[in-house]
Amino acid sequence: MPALDKVLNDIADTMAKETRRGKVADYIPQLAKVDPARFGIAVVTNDGETFTAGDADEPFSIQSISKVFTLTMALGLVGDSLWKRVGREPSGNPFNSIVQLEREQGVPRNPFINAGALVVTDVVLSQHQPREALGQILHFLRFLAGDESIVVDRAVARSETETGFRNIALANYMKAFGNLEHDPDKTLGVYFHQCAVAMSCRQLAMAGRFLAADGRNPETGGRVVSSQRARRINALMLTCGHYDGSGDFAFHVGIPGKSGVGGGILAVVPGKASIAVWSPGLNQVGNSQLGAIALERLARTMGWSVFGP
Amino acid sequence: MPALDKVLNDIADTMAKETRRGKVADYIPQLAKVDPARFGIAVVTNDGETFTAGDADEPFSIQSISKVFTLTMALGLVGDSLWKRVGREPSGNPFNSIVQLEREQGVPRNPFINAGALVVTDVVLSQHQPREALGQILHFLRFLAGDESIVVDRAVARSETETGFRNIALANYMKAFGNLEHDPDKTLGVYFHQCAVAMSCRQLAMAGRFLAADGRNPETGGRVVSSQRARRINALMLTCGHYDGSGDFAFHVGIPGKSGVGGGILAVVPGKASIAVWSPGLNQVGNSQLGAIALERLARTMGWSVFGP
Amino acid sequence: MPALDKVLNDIADTMAKETRRGKVADYIPQLAKVDPARFGIAVVTNDGETFTAGDADEPFSIQSISKVFTLTMALGLVGDSLWKRVGREPSGNPFNSIVQLEREQGVPRNPFINAGALVVTDVVLSQHQPREALGQILHFLRFLAGDESIVVDRAVARSETETGFRNIALANYMKAFGNLEHDPDKTLGVYFHQCAVAMSCRQLAMAGRFLAADGRNPETGGRVVSSQRARRINALMLTCGHYDGSGDFAFHVGIPGKSGVGGGILAVVPGKASIAVWSPGLNQVGNSQLGAIALERLARTMGWSVFGP
Amino acid sequence: MPALDKVLNDIADTMAKETRRGKVADYIPQLAKVDPARFGIAVVTNDGETFTAGDADEPFSIQSISKVFTLTMALGLVGDSLWKRVGREPSGNPFNSIVQLEREQGVPRNPFINAGALVVTDVVLSQHQPREALGQILHFLRFLAGDESIVVDRAVARSETETGFRNIALANYMKAFGNLEHDPDKTLGVYFHQCAVAMSCRQLAMAGRFLAADGRNPETGGRVVSSQRARRINALMLTCGHYDGSGDFAFHVGIPGKSGVGGGILAVVPGKASIAVWSPGLNQVGNSQLGAIALERLARTMGWSVFGP
Repeated sequence: MPALDKVLNDIADTMAKETRRGKVADYIPQLAKVDPARFGIAVVTNDGETFTAGDADEPFSIQSISKVFTLTMALGLVGDSLWKRVGREPSGNPFNSIVQLEREQGVPRNPFINAGALVVTDVVLSQHQPREALGQILHFLRFLAGDESIVVDRAVARSETETGFRNIALANYMKAFGNLEHDPDKTLGVYFHQCAVAMSCRQLAMAGRFLAADGRNPETGGRVVSSQRARRINALMLTCGHYDGSGDFAFHVGIPGKSGVGGGILAVVPGKASIAVWSPGLNQVGNSQLGAIALERLARTMGWSVFGP
Repeated sequence: MPALDKVLNDIADTMAKETRRGKVADYIPQLAKVDPARFGIAVVTNDGETFTAGDADEPFSIQSISKVFTLTMALGLVGDSLWKRVGREPSGNPFNSIVQLEREQGVPRNPFINAGALVVTDVVLSQHQPREALGQILHFLRFLAGDESIVVDRAVARSETETGFRNIALANYMKAFGNLEHDPDKTLGVYFHQCAVAMSCRQLAMAGRFLAADGRNPETGGRVVSSQRARRINALMLTCGHYDGSGDFAFHVGIPGKSGVGGGILAVVPGKASIAVWSPGLNQVGNSQLGAIALERLARTMGWSVFGP
Repeated sequence: MPALDKVLNDIADTMAKETRRGKVADYIPQLAKVDPARFGIAVVTNDGETFTAGDADEPFSIQSISKVFTLTMALGLVGDSLWKRVGREPSGNPFNSIVQLEREQGVPRNPFINAGALVVTDVVLSQHQPREALGQILHFLRFLAGDESIVVDRAVARSETETGFRNIALANYMKAFGNLEHDPDKTLGVYFHQCAVAMSCRQLAMAGRFLAADGRNPETGGRVVSSQRARRINALMLTCGHYDGSGDFAFHVGIPGKSGVGGGILAVVPGKASIAVWSPGLNQVGNSQLGAIALERLARTMGWSVFGP
Repeated sequence: MPALDKVLNDIADTMAKETRRGKVADYIPQLAKVDPARFGIAVVTNDGETFTAGDADEPFSIQSISKVFTLTMALGLVGDSLWKRVGREPSGNPFNSIVQLEREQGVPRNPFINAGALVVTDVVLSQHQPREALGQILHFLRFLAGDESIVVDRAVARSETETGFRNIALANYMKAFGNLEHDPDKTLGVYFHQCAVAMSCRQLAMAGRFLAADGRNPETGGRVVSSQRARRINALMLTCGHYDGSGDFAFHVGIPGKSGVGGGILAVVPGKASIAVWSPGLNQVGNSQLGAIALERLARTMGWSVFGP
């Protein structure tokens, strides 16, 4: 097996020279300010070693990657009854998902499209006030990453709140179908803030360890979720983690992953490692362009794939 | 690890008692005649052992499972240029796929929906006459399974040809967009016959061995396809192999699989085993109802999952 | 020509006995309280006579019928530039229109579906505050009807505001595409109130006179809109005035009309008469069931149709 | 009222100078050969006068205009039971209609989209052989136009048969839903030939007289269809006669009309006149570009509109 530190440095070097870097998300004004030249990557192996390259300690907006963690929390709260309110199928929709919301009566296709994540947040909100729910999400992220310094980027949160008309539409649309328990504004408030959490590649890879370790914290051996639940979350990441590019990511990279429009991707090699990569430019379906290429290269070099022996 | 023969027998016994068996496909008159009480299962491990239970030697119509093998052939013929004509994303469509054909200008979402498989067959047809192309498909299946007795069920083929209006529509629709090279009737002729191939669970599990063995025939060590190609076909099976139930199958069973409306499912445990199961009754999205349940039970009992260590 | 008073009384008598009266709209709680047994009809001819039968002086919630009047106002404000923001085609959608909003980038198909009417209201709002804009709408309705007693039903307006999640979704969705100038809450505020205007059949028929009289107030001869504009509004009512039942209404009744979920329909016989009918029960596509039947009978008896000599 | 001969000559002169003439249909190779500079117009008034200008005696392919006449025949054969198999609503679909066929289980939205016209032709075919059915269609057209010289353009018919994959798809798709009685190839054979009928503006305007004269042949006074049926066919032309440009045609021209991709439009002024116009270039939604403009000008000049007095 090649030495991970060398592999990561090679990848970071190659990515630094890449000129086709995709397009930084501009629909959230605050995200549009991020420098497209940034690139970071971090790998935390199940035996506890951490390898990084590039801007691996620079915090970025995790955006939709937060959905993996709120899903984990919601399953902890209500178990499989969550699936009455959210599906488990890829959306298969190049546009976005409001079409299917209409056709499927307000039940989002999966927890990783925006509509589905709003339902998940609605569950996490449960009886709490938005501020407390957000506190619990932060608490969970800090616990998983073993890092108390993780915070919400208030400027990003404000920017999302002011310009998130599409998400406001989705939330109200589901409310019309009775698939949102709380006042849409409350659920949206928590959602906009969870997306605005800032984490570095190192922190994110640490937070993802339980998915690589069949549900346990590999450091302490403590169980975060059951083995079955960890596997199922991985399955959802593989089939639905990259919107309408999920099939392509599975085809090229071959491991579960979840992307965010901040340019981050969390990826999981079951039994081996948790990976986070960050490059702000996005491809046409809204996933980090260089992030996916870097992961494909890393997986191929290391022989990591869930589809081979 | 539990003994496979005992596990399979337990599963077959449980399935025999199951009363909710789904609904046998009736849109092809010949398929509607199959006894819903049948159940068979076969596992071929990478170290060459075969285990079976129930009606594992009874041939059934493989239908869409044939798409895995014609895809393998087409990739052998034209390589990655195939992907200009077919996508690699789940269709995410509860109805069927003609909607997306229209929206996406005649390019099917993936090679495992009917439209995509027709394009694949159009490639396999290449310069040949339909009869020769069909001969090559049979030849490939017999080679993979190591069994010269595999044949087309002519009654089923005739039944499909006479009632396959929807597939005729799909083929002509793609022809209108220029995404079919041959006369639609020719491509359809081969397609209807490849779907009408009859195989037993044992034969099917044998034919799938190269996908469990990273592209090699585990018996001879001979390479069927490259390691990368085998992994990619597995990835496509996982994300697209069960129509609009693919996410659910990944979630519950956790291994790549391809179903057919004849009630069969071919499933692959990379590095470990090739599996075929058969139960004619289908669930609401058109996949074998007991087949999926049996595979979920088998995978859980054996600890087989691509999403865990 | 039969005597109108007798014709209307016959129709009202027949409708009183009708047992299949449709279903009163229940998604706005306040509307659900209306007695389904009510029926009223009023005809104002171009030579100034008024005929009524049944509950013709009972105010009801005009709902979407208000869209005809705000469209007239918006065209007065911005002329044909309105059509950059709204289409003029039937939506042809049995579900509702958010699907097409997505496909057509936030431009509603016509001004009579909810999304289109929201854009129209956004134009009427122009530089004003919601309260003033609503005042102008009321002023215009009172002027057209020659009746200062027309008011907003505050209980209905409040009920709509509290439960109008679907409209909130539509407004925010269009805002995301840049097709709403104002804060969605402001536009929605005016919209919910315009829909909650209460008018009787008599008042409504009076307000519609200018459409029957080629743009003039037939009483005073004063021009309300140009002849061309009146004809075009009639054309839009004919092709789009009854949602996905517009074709059927044109087929059976044969004159332009606009329905509202309060159970009212405003219909126009160009050159002859303005008609309003009210029966709270709705058919499957959301139009007054007995209202349409009454209009069909009236039109046939009187020989009124735009499709014959 | 202006003199019609002068009005038509003015229009023809203006159209001759127009440089933006749209795009001649090229998906049927034979149609692509037509000279885009051609323009003809003919008006037959209810009192029996005929006025023409330009290439009014040049035969062109009537294409979808034939649907008006086969609809009239089918209603004569099976009456209102036709509406169990075809709807009466605008399709509202910018792409084409196969999407709605899927959603609405093989029942086309109206008789003027291709799918609906195929069902209508399937009815006309009834117990006959294709050749006889086509003979009856020709017979009916000759009778209406009072002109025995009307024939099918065999080259166009052959061209359509060889390249009509989309129509083949539609027919087979409906057959799959059980909404085609005959072998799709037979229905398609008649359909391709009815579309290939060649008629001049003069012949077409003559053939449309019964729709302008409330169902009668204005020359003989003989009844072709009932007054109600004539009005209903006009209503369908107005709401559905120009595909997804029907609303716009009603808005700008204000009278019922049916277009064909050969560049012809048949239009009806109830009680006054039957009009045919021809200019081969099509606009973006597939209707004759100059044809619609010429009709708008003619209607405005003459004060013809169903939406005014």
